[in-house]
Amino acid sequence: MSFAALQKNIIEKKNPTVAGLDARIEYVPQPIIDKYVAQYGETRKAAAEAIFEFNCGLIDALCDIVPAVKPQAAYYELLGWEGVEMMERTINYAKEKGMYVIADIKRGDIGATASAYAEGWLGKSKVGSALIPCFDADCVTVNGYMGADAVNPFLKIANEEDKTLFALVRTSNPSAVDLQDLTIGDQKIYEVMGDLVAKWGEGFEDEYGYNRVGAVIGATWPEQLAEMRAALPHTFFLVPGYGAQGGTAQDVKFAFDEKGHGAIVNSSRGIMCAWKKTGKDGADYQEAARNEAIKMRDAITAITPIQE
Amino acid sequence: MSFAALQKNIIEKKNPTVAGLDARIEYVPQPIIDKYVAQYGETRKAAAEAIFEFNCGLIDALCDIVPAVKPQAAYYELLGWEGVEMMERTINYAKEKGMYVIADIKRGDIGATASAYAEGWLGKSKVGSALIPCFDADCVTVNGYMGADAVNPFLKIANEEDKTLFALVRTSNPSAVDLQDLTIGDQKIYEVMGDLVAKWGEGFEDEYGYNRVGAVIGATWPEQLAEMRAALPHTFFLVPGYGAQGGTAQDVKFAFDEKGHGAIVNSSRGIMCAWKKTGKDGADYQEAARNEAIKMRDAITAITPIQE
Repeated sequence: MSFAALQKNIIEKKNPTVAGLDARIEYVPQPIIDKYVAQYGETRKAAAEAIFEFNCGLIDALCDIVPAVKPQAAYYELLGWEGVEMMERTINYAKEKGMYVIADIKRGDIGATASAYAEGWLGKSKVGSALIPCFDADCVTVNGYMGADAVNPFLKIANEEDKTLFALVRTSNPSAVDLQDLTIGDQKIYEVMGDLVAKWGEGFEDEYGYNRVGAVIGATWPEQLAEMRAALPHTFFLVPGYGAQGGTAQDVKFAFDEKGHGAIVNSSRGIMCAWKKTGKDGADYQEAARNEAIKMRDAITAITPIQE
Repeated sequence: MSFAALQKNIIEKKNPTVAGLDARIEYVPQPIIDKYVAQYGETRKAAAEAIFEFNCGLIDALCDIVPAVKPQAAYYELLGWEGVEMMERTINYAKEKGMYVIADIKRGDIGATASAYAEGWLGKSKVGSALIPCFDADCVTVNGYMGADAVNPFLKIANEEDKTLFALVRTSNPSAVDLQDLTIGDQKIYEVMGDLVAKWGEGFEDEYGYNRVGAVIGATWPEQLAEMRAALPHTFFLVPGYGAQGGTAQDVKFAFDEKGHGAIVNSSRGIMCAWKKTGKDGADYQEAARNEAIKMRDAITAITPIQE
């Protein structure tokens, strides 16, 4: 799916949110785990299959109202190659269901190595004369600490394949200040990174006025969101940290432009673990996730209406 | 293998180098590729199996003289889950052959997500009552742009499992200057990152005087290597960029302490692709890699002798 198609979906569904798929086994209702442990024992395979069923159930419950999912690679790698294989299946399943897939991989490497990541995650792998898609996500997150060399190979593939990337600018965690808030002349490091992101994205704008290199800016930093929104008019924002990490609808309003466009807000645990608050041991995990997603959508759009 | 054991091996083999396993199919001799394409077609599986045979051949040719290997995750992910599965096998094979394994993953994420990466790559995954190792490398590379939150979860697992990490400080690429060379007060960003790395590693020193949080500093920046060596006396350096990227034995001498300890220098393409320069179409890829590894070892230790 193109990035413009995602934005169209956001506007049509009136829902600027993305459901994080942080596939920790602890988030899966016990009966689903038990089923696969009975079949495969206490193995990585059992955990991967339990999470896959859970992911598919979440996608089924959300796909008509939530435009995107964000599988977080760490939780899949936690199960070794079986987890990574299941991540591929999860990406494919979400795409089949019409969802936009942001692979949250935060890769950052240089030159030929960055090209390999970009080809593996967004593009195609070459074996002899065959060009084979691998993870084939619609979008990835990247880390620009290594500079343009780490971002340009992703941008090249994104241009070729009509895909998108988000670079870390101001992350949602408390220790973001360790480095990102230090001052260089009259700018902080995250502001410098914001300018680099804008520069990397230059030369292309879609019909909504945004380019292919978005920025990750945490919901936990509303002031910085407002500042960056003003400074980076053509940069789309991916906003993590809503819900479990403390970000609110009031905080994230600063991420959007005057039309209510230009940002997508992520919630992972809030949606995935909603069933833990209903007292039904997970039998209602789909309904609980859907209700939570609706609550999040309504909270955000009550404050920030989305215009056509 | 513990980090102290790696240092002991470096001293005994008198070889402070690590062979990068950047598993690009283009680096594999054609007859090996042809064999697996005949069996599996032009598929990810064929590429993964060809690279695995090549990796094992390299490990066999190097393991008695080179103390460590550094598989670069990007090249494995380029083949999707089949590549990641083969990366696990490569790590296991290198460990069986007595080599120290640095998984070059450059991961950087926060909190629970960083813990998942750390458990997956250095620690164990929990499924029910079972604790299952996954990639189980001896060491990983990490990206500290997100601050302590991105590093502490790795450090926790490293302490529990007697393992090690290297954080990016000054990378070997030309655009490292985009961000890392900007000035904060009287320090550059990479110097601030160096200080953070030293702080994160505090409170532990092995018998060689080094702690668990090393720094990645490129061979292409000899001045910065010298400066950081003086500033960070208890921080071990991983030095990429030797050979193909332009770093020389003269450049990397600045990475070592006065005993010739405290650093390990990586070469990937120089060793893996040595066969391309001998005119034998790869029939001699093991011999060529070994000769190149010996040449690199001798060039470095001629300038920087390693004391007991």
